Amino acid sequence: MIIVMKAGAVKKDRDEVLKRIKELGYKPHVIHGTTRDVIGAVGDERGKLVLQTIESMHGVESVVPILQPYKLASKEVKKESSVIAVSDTVAIGGRQIVVMAGPCSVESERQIIESAIAVKAAGAHILRGGAFKPRTSPYSFQGLEEDGLKLLAKARTETGLPVVTEVVNPETADLVAEYADILQIGARNAQNFALLKKVGQLRKPILLKRGMSMTIQEFLMSAEYIMSEGNQAVILCERGIRTFETATRNTLDLSAIPVLKERTHLPVIADPSHGTGNYHYVAPMACAAVAAGADGLIIEVHPDPERASSDGPQSLKPKKFAVLMDQLRRIAPAMEREL
Amino acid sequence: MIIVMKAGAVKKDRDEVLKRIKELGYKPHVIHGTTRDVIGAVGDERGKLVLQTIESMHGVESVVPILQPYKLASKEVKKESSVIAVSDTVAIGGRQIVVMAGPCSVESERQIIESAIAVKAAGAHILRGGAFKPRTSPYSFQGLEEDGLKLLAKARTETGLPVVTEVVNPETADLVAEYADILQIGARNAQNFALLKKVGQLRKPILLKRGMSMTIQEFLMSAEYIMSEGNQAVILCERGIRTFETATRNTLDLSAIPVLKERTHLPVIADPSHGTGNYHYVAPMACAAVAAGADGLIIEVHPDPERASSDGPQSLKPKKFAVLMDQLRRIAPAMEREL
Amino acid sequence: MIIVMKAGAVKKDRDEVLKRIKELGYKPHVIHGTTRDVIGAVGDERGKLVLQTIESMHGVESVVPILQPYKLASKEVKKESSVIAVSDTVAIGGRQIVVMAGPCSVESERQIIESAIAVKAAGAHILRGGAFKPRTSPYSFQGLEEDGLKLLAKARTETGLPVVTEVVNPETADLVAEYADILQIGARNAQNFALLKKVGQLRKPILLKRGMSMTIQEFLMSAEYIMSEGNQAVILCERGIRTFETATRNTLDLSAIPVLKERTHLPVIADPSHGTGNYHYVAPMACAAVAAGADGLIIEVHPDPERASSDGPQSLKPKKFAVLMDQLRRIAPAMEREL
Amino acid sequence: MIIVMKAGAVKKDRDEVLKRIKELGYKPHVIHGTTRDVIGAVGDERGKLVLQTIESMHGVESVVPILQPYKLASKEVKKESSVIAVSDTVAIGGRQIVVMAGPCSVESERQIIESAIAVKAAGAHILRGGAFKPRTSPYSFQGLEEDGLKLLAKARTETGLPVVTEVVNPETADLVAEYADILQIGARNAQNFALLKKVGQLRKPILLKRGMSMTIQEFLMSAEYIMSEGNQAVILCERGIRTFETATRNTLDLSAIPVLKERTHLPVIADPSHGTGNYHYVAPMACAAVAAGADGLIIEVHPDPERASSDGPQSLKPKKFAVLMDQLRRIAPAMEREL
Repeated sequence: MIIVMKAGAVKKDRDEVLKRIKELGYKPHVIHGTTRDVIGAVGDERGKLVLQTIESMHGVESVVPILQPYKLASKEVKKESSVIAVSDTVAIGGRQIVVMAGPCSVESERQIIESAIAVKAAGAHILRGGAFKPRTSPYSFQGLEEDGLKLLAKARTETGLPVVTEVVNPETADLVAEYADILQIGARNAQNFALLKKVGQLRKPILLKRGMSMTIQEFLMSAEYIMSEGNQAVILCERGIRTFETATRNTLDLSAIPVLKERTHLPVIADPSHGTGNYHYVAPMACAAVAAGADGLIIEVHPDPERASSDGPQSLKPKKFAVLMDQLRRIAPAMEREL
Repeated sequence: MIIVMKAGAVKKDRDEVLKRIKELGYKPHVIHGTTRDVIGAVGDERGKLVLQTIESMHGVESVVPILQPYKLASKEVKKESSVIAVSDTVAIGGRQIVVMAGPCSVESERQIIESAIAVKAAGAHILRGGAFKPRTSPYSFQGLEEDGLKLLAKARTETGLPVVTEVVNPETADLVAEYADILQIGARNAQNFALLKKVGQLRKPILLKRGMSMTIQEFLMSAEYIMSEGNQAVILCERGIRTFETATRNTLDLSAIPVLKERTHLPVIADPSHGTGNYHYVAPMACAAVAAGADGLIIEVHPDPERASSDGPQSLKPKKFAVLMDQLRRIAPAMEREL
Repeated sequence: MIIVMKAGAVKKDRDEVLKRIKELGYKPHVIHGTTRDVIGAVGDERGKLVLQTIESMHGVESVVPILQPYKLASKEVKKESSVIAVSDTVAIGGRQIVVMAGPCSVESERQIIESAIAVKAAGAHILRGGAFKPRTSPYSFQGLEEDGLKLLAKARTETGLPVVTEVVNPETADLVAEYADILQIGARNAQNFALLKKVGQLRKPILLKRGMSMTIQEFLMSAEYIMSEGNQAVILCERGIRTFETATRNTLDLSAIPVLKERTHLPVIADPSHGTGNYHYVAPMACAAVAAGADGLIIEVHPDPERASSDGPQSLKPKKFAVLMDQLRRIAPAMEREL
Repeated sequence: MIIVMKAGAVKKDRDEVLKRIKELGYKPHVIHGTTRDVIGAVGDERGKLVLQTIESMHGVESVVPILQPYKLASKEVKKESSVIAVSDTVAIGGRQIVVMAGPCSVESERQIIESAIAVKAAGAHILRGGAFKPRTSPYSFQGLEEDGLKLLAKARTETGLPVVTEVVNPETADLVAEYADILQIGARNAQNFALLKKVGQLRKPILLKRGMSMTIQEFLMSAEYIMSEGNQAVILCERGIRTFETATRNTLDLSAIPVLKERTHLPVIADPSHGTGNYHYVAPMACAAVAAGADGLIIEVHPDPERASSDGPQSLKPKKFAVLMDQLRRIAPAMEREL
């Protein structure tokens, strides 16, 4: 960590800072600049964020951290990419680009089975569908809950597709884990630390969505929460951040993909459905995500979007999804991947 | 709700939309424009957000909601301001500007008692202190948990100040409610709907912080979650939103205060400590919040910020807090309020 | 335009609004809702934005525009895509993906000639290089000005590549137009309307970069400024918007590409160099832009980035650029384009 | 400047960096950390931003600047606050809070004279009014240009109020300077460096508005542009930044006021009209700005906002402006200021 002193700081200020650095177990190292001093504090600064409190000392202008605060998620700690097995046939993070598809919400047996058959036919590897729905309004459809989980399990039996579904509450996490092959943490819960700790104790892969206003560093810290509880099977998902632009529901930050690939060994997928909020833009952004290096995609597909209980405007019809899959099959080899 | 048709939409598209609007129980009303048609759908659109799925119909360009989606929180429903009683002597939302102050985290008996005595001496009305701490890093101090709650209760007994503390998990909400006078929902949990529903079932006032990337409308929808479960005692807290500016930890959006005052009857307070992240800026922003019409403030005060377990850089020392309280006492009358 | 009345508005308020709408030459159309009235104002609202002043009338809650405010740039007005000829051999907006490459600044004859030869060898179609540099600091290198333009012309003679360079001031626009094949308007001048009007009077293609905090609608309005002066040859360039994320210099908003393609007939290219600010991320984002549907790319390439006068950290070395061009040649056919 | 090496960097990488630092005229200083090295480069880094190009060297992770890049605007260079004289009776930056008020655009003789008389009667010190209008749409009213300047001069003669008006083009800056007492640079031109340099050569005070997505540091760099050309009379104006929130036209960043006060000696004012875009919120935000430490305000006042050529929805009527001035007169003494 680097401590930048103010231009007007006096020797006493500096001595106090040096003393405090030593108290905290670091080795200080002073650089005398032309207008101010800069002090390096050498030592492992992770897990000791208390060093930052030096910022409130007299004569200190700012404290600049040097190390990334995550360890288990870091590529420095584990250099080779993690490949996360979901079932006997599906693994995320390897050469294959994995596509998860299905409706936003599980609405009925017919709807989920029909969806599952359609996305499988088009080549999807995993079925998505929400049983517990975090909705902005208390008056919106909140999901079929356990009945929805049962329908997902039925769709899995029918098609052989593993299922991914969201968990919204530590109290129902075990229940969801009984049915799901991958547990999803949604964007609004991406810093719900109680929930992150809970799923960290499970032994199922976790699909962690980036929060709407989360920096990439904070995103990795949320992965670290899960991993520090013992569950290393974390799949990161870029799903759009909140910006001033209103033409799209969110701004899908595809540059997060190469940034994450540089910093972590965890697989990274993209969600162009939530990322854009408009089915017109899903196909180009899905292609772009793969070209940016994504290990997979999660896409909303609904047999009848006009009658969907949630997220209709951003859902693809099965036919359009099949066209997109064909296009992805042409792009994947250009990226030395396969679909 | 207003449905805007595309310039190139044909009669068949429009007829399908009209049919669907009627199916959903609304009365359609067509306006023929110079280049396109616009359709009004008359009816109570709240609780029926499914109308938005019309956006995925052929020939539809966009769907524009007219009504705000919240009811219980709305000033249209309840015109007079809500005044929320916290104890026999403290109420929020009336003429008095209420100041909550204390350390970020409860660290020790000595620290919390000392803080409580100091903030009371300066004129604060409520003691703040965190026992369950939502921290970005799993390696940071996570709070004293129930021991912290007990120390807060002890500080209340010593000073008579009611206490506000954060709840982070539905599973421990009842425990926190046993000790606290006000339960705080933090910014990172502002759309943790499982937690919002849980505290909506309690009978204690809730201090709801605005999420870092929450619009004002979404903020009111989170209040609506709590209120729709039966708990009307919600205090809204502006605590800074995330923007591109890095000179401050967040951007304290004081314009949210007059906007909220126009839309809701609920009291609104501001948190200049998290809003700025730097103790230098706390006093001017506290004054500004009161001048903008805030009903109260929540301010971090720590007897020894350099040794705080969390948020040291944004904590005021008791002496500076007392100076600020004096300044607020001069500003309040100019706003026809009192401290 | 739609005028939403307040729930509490009385008949007199509505009558005043109706009167004013007629005065302004529109035909009003009232929809009586359950809690409030909504008034449609039928007529061409472009060029008469004064209708928006109705928002300040008594009883009015908000005014919602229906039409996009641009005409010449709109796909509704001109359905087929514009293909902009730059030279006898290069045109932008057709089947070919056009790559512009070269250093941020023209620094010396040797540097620009060497760059031009290298990017041409790798397959670039146009040479980029700045002679007038808009720099955040007055103490940074400001460009070689006319000498730089002459060197660009020399590089064109040597390699046959057309050149694109930035214009920063109406006073020097004619001078730049004498030398350049395409004039670039930079992000910081994207709403410098005096400059937009000036280049609208020239007869050279304009490369218009999106401003850092410009919505897509505002971006098209800036194109409209140029077009309304008579110059229809506008090439739009997404170059990253400003968000809270600091891992990249800007957030390259690739979803702007499909949104623009839907709204306008103008060609759209992307700038992954400024969009990311880091040469590590340029190649994946260049590939992603093409997969998202971009008509071209503008990429910073410098023979010796460590010694560049500007933007070294985001510049590719010629060798890496050649590798990227090979990758793009594999992706283009998957998008039914060619390089 | 601090250069952070990668964890995997080898001795050769470090030696190259050390060599390059020396070449650039800095003194390197190595700190050996537990996982990586950090190198301090001692020397005046302003005006030599080329040091940042080290970021593109092999083995370098990042380069962290230590010094602020501005000099003339810095409080480190000039400790006492600057007081800028506008006329014999009005100065900005002293004990008095200076209020500039008037219509967005000069529309007619009657309108500007009526406005000037009204704002003077309410206690305003300076008259504002736009003659050259930078409008997002080429089809919107673009201002009366020189005729507008003449009307402003007439209003000054009638009332004795100095006038502030916007300059949008280097070519017309001299003309505007003939008529105006203060020249305003608008938000969209805040990084129009050609214009900044031009007004830096004039000898009139400059009111510099913050760009919509400008950091505070960039804002000070734009002031530095003006000052580096010789004009030290720069008044900074916070006018709202662009964020995700849509309830207000912009987000008025009042925390910029204490941050600027800490970093610069220049006076700082606020524009609550553009900052909120809605006349309902102007009064509370004007009060808040003064409480946050602003040296003045610029407020849009129009005798008939419903018929204004621009910005009607955010303009106060003279009567409401007079009420606001009374309120400000009560707040100012609480801040040890006067109106």
